[in-house]
Amino acid sequence: MPSEYRFRRRVQFYETDAAGIVHFSWFFRYMEEAEHALWREAGLSIASPDSDIGWPRVAASFDYHSALRFEQEFDVQLRVAALTRKTIRYTCLLTRDETRIATGSLTVVCVRRQPNQQMKAIEIPPEIAACFQPAADAGV
Amino acid sequence: MPSEYRFRRRVQFYETDAAGIVHFSWFFRYMEEAEHALWREAGLSIASPDSDIGWPRVAASFDYHSALRFEQEFDVQLRVAALTRKTIRYTCLLTRDETRIATGSLTVVCVRRQPNQQMKAIEIPPEIAACFQPAADAGV
Amino acid sequence: MPSEYRFRRRVQFYETDAAGIVHFSWFFRYMEEAEHALWREAGLSIASPDSDIGWPRVAASFDYHSALRFEQEFDVQLRVAALTRKTIRYTCLLTRDETRIATGSLTVVCVRRQPNQQMKAIEIPPEIAACFQPAADAGV
Amino acid sequence: MPSEYRFRRRVQFYETDAAGIVHFSWFFRYMEEAEHALWREAGLSIASPDSDIGWPRVAASFDYHSALRFEQEFDVQLRVAALTRKTIRYTCLLTRDETRIATGSLTVVCVRRQPNQQMKAIEIPPEIAACFQPAADAGV
Repeated sequence: MPSEYRFRRRVQFYETDAAGIVHFSWFFRYMEEAEHALWREAGLSIASPDSDIGWPRVAASFDYHSALRFEQEFDVQLRVAALTRKTIRYTCLLTRDETRIATGSLTVVCVRRQPNQQMKAIEIPPEIAACFQPAADAGV
Repeated sequence: MPSEYRFRRRVQFYETDAAGIVHFSWFFRYMEEAEHALWREAGLSIASPDSDIGWPRVAASFDYHSALRFEQEFDVQLRVAALTRKTIRYTCLLTRDETRIATGSLTVVCVRRQPNQQMKAIEIPPEIAACFQPAADAGV
Repeated sequence: MPSEYRFRRRVQFYETDAAGIVHFSWFFRYMEEAEHALWREAGLSIASPDSDIGWPRVAASFDYHSALRFEQEFDVQLRVAALTRKTIRYTCLLTRDETRIATGSLTVVCVRRQPNQQMKAIEIPPEIAACFQPAADAGV
Repeated sequence: MPSEYRFRRRVQFYETDAAGIVHFSWFFRYMEEAEHALWREAGLSIASPDSDIGWPRVAASFDYHSALRFEQEFDVQLRVAALTRKTIRYTCLLTRDETRIATGSLTVVCVRRQPNQQMKAIEIPPEIAACFQPAADAGV
């Protein structure tokens, strides 16, 4: 029943922009990498080809404190902040050694996908909800 | 003295993901496209090669209301929401016909860039501040 | 029965890298943008949600002659170079004013997609093949 | 004096497209990840902030043999295929278990970068050339 996931990652060249730093859109991808790794650690896939359940994002945000540059290594820490009947909310902290790089938040909703139709929010299946537990101190 | 910018755009294939919709990280790039076009309309470049001033992002967020799919056309509307001594805050609305797709916010700070040094926040030069005016009704 | 497509495009900030130029992977996306616009001009969608036919790429290449930088405008010219029973090959030329930026090539194959199975190459449906005509001078 | 680099990687969700497979533009980024890791293994950085030497790409190509899907693991093998006075050419093989996924090639040229000027090809500095040795069997 994991409530958080941490991993270390290195800045790739294609993630940088002409200002010489990681483009701000990449932080949302780093956060999602951690989310999917958390699910794998729980024995799940967030996008199994055999499932008609999906997890679209309903809100995402980042506050940027310090820049990341090519080849720097940094740590991503994702925590389950809240679990409601239909949604999961995560918080995310990026650090490089002692430096706070960015803090983020991501809320996803459980939906049933039907071909050529709007996605419809549904209750999180109990066998999935049972896999996650909000962290005791998930911050914001 | 523009206070907003609107443009129409089409979803590119490489912006979609295996869920068949635009990946949520792309909305931040759409918002930035509008920001840079707003600056061009004001006669400015946000990243002029001759300038040592930069505009790193300090906060970015989106709420997602409806999905976008390959080849769909949608409208991006960016508004200057607030202008402080050192920062600019924009709000952004994405729509497809009458459908609200997403609402976002972006805050950027004016910095002086020096080789191999931390970026340092500075006051927005008056000739730049004079180019923008907060919209009367910039929403959130 | 179009055999080529041309459009003008501006470099977006997120397409640049820390070397201050467009990252080389982006040229393949520019080429694909032109391909999909060519198909729309022919009254087709290359990825219609109602179709079980797909067009995976089997070969792609670019030679790079000159760099592109933030906010520069450039022209993309895509030509149908060859049409075989199962494949289409395009050539692509990127220019900025009189400057040759890059020359590319892309080969795609017609496949039938079946859930959870390998894609299988099929003959291009005649109603699609009839929509394209190799350009008289498509270059390499 | 390394002549090749291998690493294992997992497909990220944002690398997939609406066809459910990795977008073909990503393979060029995978190849570049291997190149930069090869340089690090040689004790070098391909884009050191203290250097005025750069390595723009002059040619890149891939042949695609089989698709990659979300969360699949695959292997990237990059080899130094040829070293000339001013260029390095690599070949690249992507595999998943026994399946050949794609084969690529990348040629880069050594340049001196000067602010606001065209990049100019120069001879590879001997201390860099000494770090690489063409592989005995680099394929194409």
